[in-house]
Amino acid sequence: MTRLEQQIRFILDADKLKQVVRRTRLIEPHGVESRFENTAEHSWHIALMAMVLEEHSNEHVDILRVLKMLLVHDLVEIDAGDTPAFGEQGSKESAEAAAADRIFSLLPEDQRDEFHALWREFEERATPESRFANAMDRMLPSFQNIANLGGSWRDFHVHRAKADARLSPIGDGSAAVWEAVRQVLDEAERQGLLKSDARG
Amino acid sequence: MTRLEQQIRFILDADKLKQVVRRTRLIEPHGVESRFENTAEHSWHIALMAMVLEEHSNEHVDILRVLKMLLVHDLVEIDAGDTPAFGEQGSKESAEAAAADRIFSLLPEDQRDEFHALWREFEERATPESRFANAMDRMLPSFQNIANLGGSWRDFHVHRAKADARLSPIGDGSAAVWEAVRQVLDEAERQGLLKSDARG
Repeated sequence: MTRLEQQIRFILDADKLKQVVRRTRLIEPHGVESRFENTAEHSWHIALMAMVLEEHSNEHVDILRVLKMLLVHDLVEIDAGDTPAFGEQGSKESAEAAAADRIFSLLPEDQRDEFHALWREFEERATPESRFANAMDRMLPSFQNIANLGGSWRDFHVHRAKADARLSPIGDGSAAVWEAVRQVLDEAERQGLLKSDARG
Repeated sequence: MTRLEQQIRFILDADKLKQVVRRTRLIEPHGVESRFENTAEHSWHIALMAMVLEEHSNEHVDILRVLKMLLVHDLVEIDAGDTPAFGEQGSKESAEAAAADRIFSLLPEDQRDEFHALWREFEERATPESRFANAMDRMLPSFQNIANLGGSWRDFHVHRAKADARLSPIGDGSAAVWEAVRQVLDEAERQGLLKSDARG
């Protein structure tokens, strides 16, 4: 098999990401319940966001590596499925590691290694690029949920403290974006879309 | 409105691209008729392809600009809709120009100008980056159609000559990719999925 044939085989396999369904819904301005989002269109959206919001990164980032990371990091869901942010995390890690091995091995060796490294970098959140990429990935669902009567917050009966724990790493990538998300969470709590935490 | 508020308004508007339906279907390995693809997930797929196939570009390209172009160029379809490759082209140009004006104007001025320029560059196909980006955009449907009993070729009763005319600009971006696509078209013609042209 030529390099190009290997690459095309990978590209055709990647088509399956369009069939992986997430727990967030499309933003629907007319109050109709919209369909669930799939992971491929989500990946496009967060890459576009990174282009637009680069200036708000806490640290200087190589935006090319951010975009590559965002386009690649969710491919593991083809085999491992989407793990809802507010659901059980279970055996996510080992399933995704096996998926990365299979999917990236469709590529020629040098690209297999490059893509694997991008995926691992995203997961480890140890570089400015991965922290900013993670901020993009975690930011969007709050805006989708508040536009959808609570969306996945409602479906998983999420308390504010749990939302804060899941979403506060946004601040490691962009303090400005985290502040905007916190305002959405405040509003969602006021509207009862996020459960307030028991106090006193 | 702050810059960040403007940028978020643009990002939320962009969500609508997930509701624009194309005439190509997902690759379905089990012979079941799959759903139509939407433009957002298509944009993700062709950006991923550009990452993988960069080495096959006829000319050296700035891959960051290619990725940005692919992520942005179809946003005009939010207002203008998808124009099927083999359907009537009609008033596509003026509708897309009006769409570009509205959508990119949601952004701060400097980004409005940047995104508008990326969209125009893609349409004009006058740079190595835009020729390679166009090759990515035009390549994928042939693989989707042959996996879907002819797909949009069948729906629009497409002749081989019309497919060649639409797809040959792939060769301006990548001779190697165009050769791979030609092999798919040959096979599709043999299988009767593309109509052979009248001869003699």
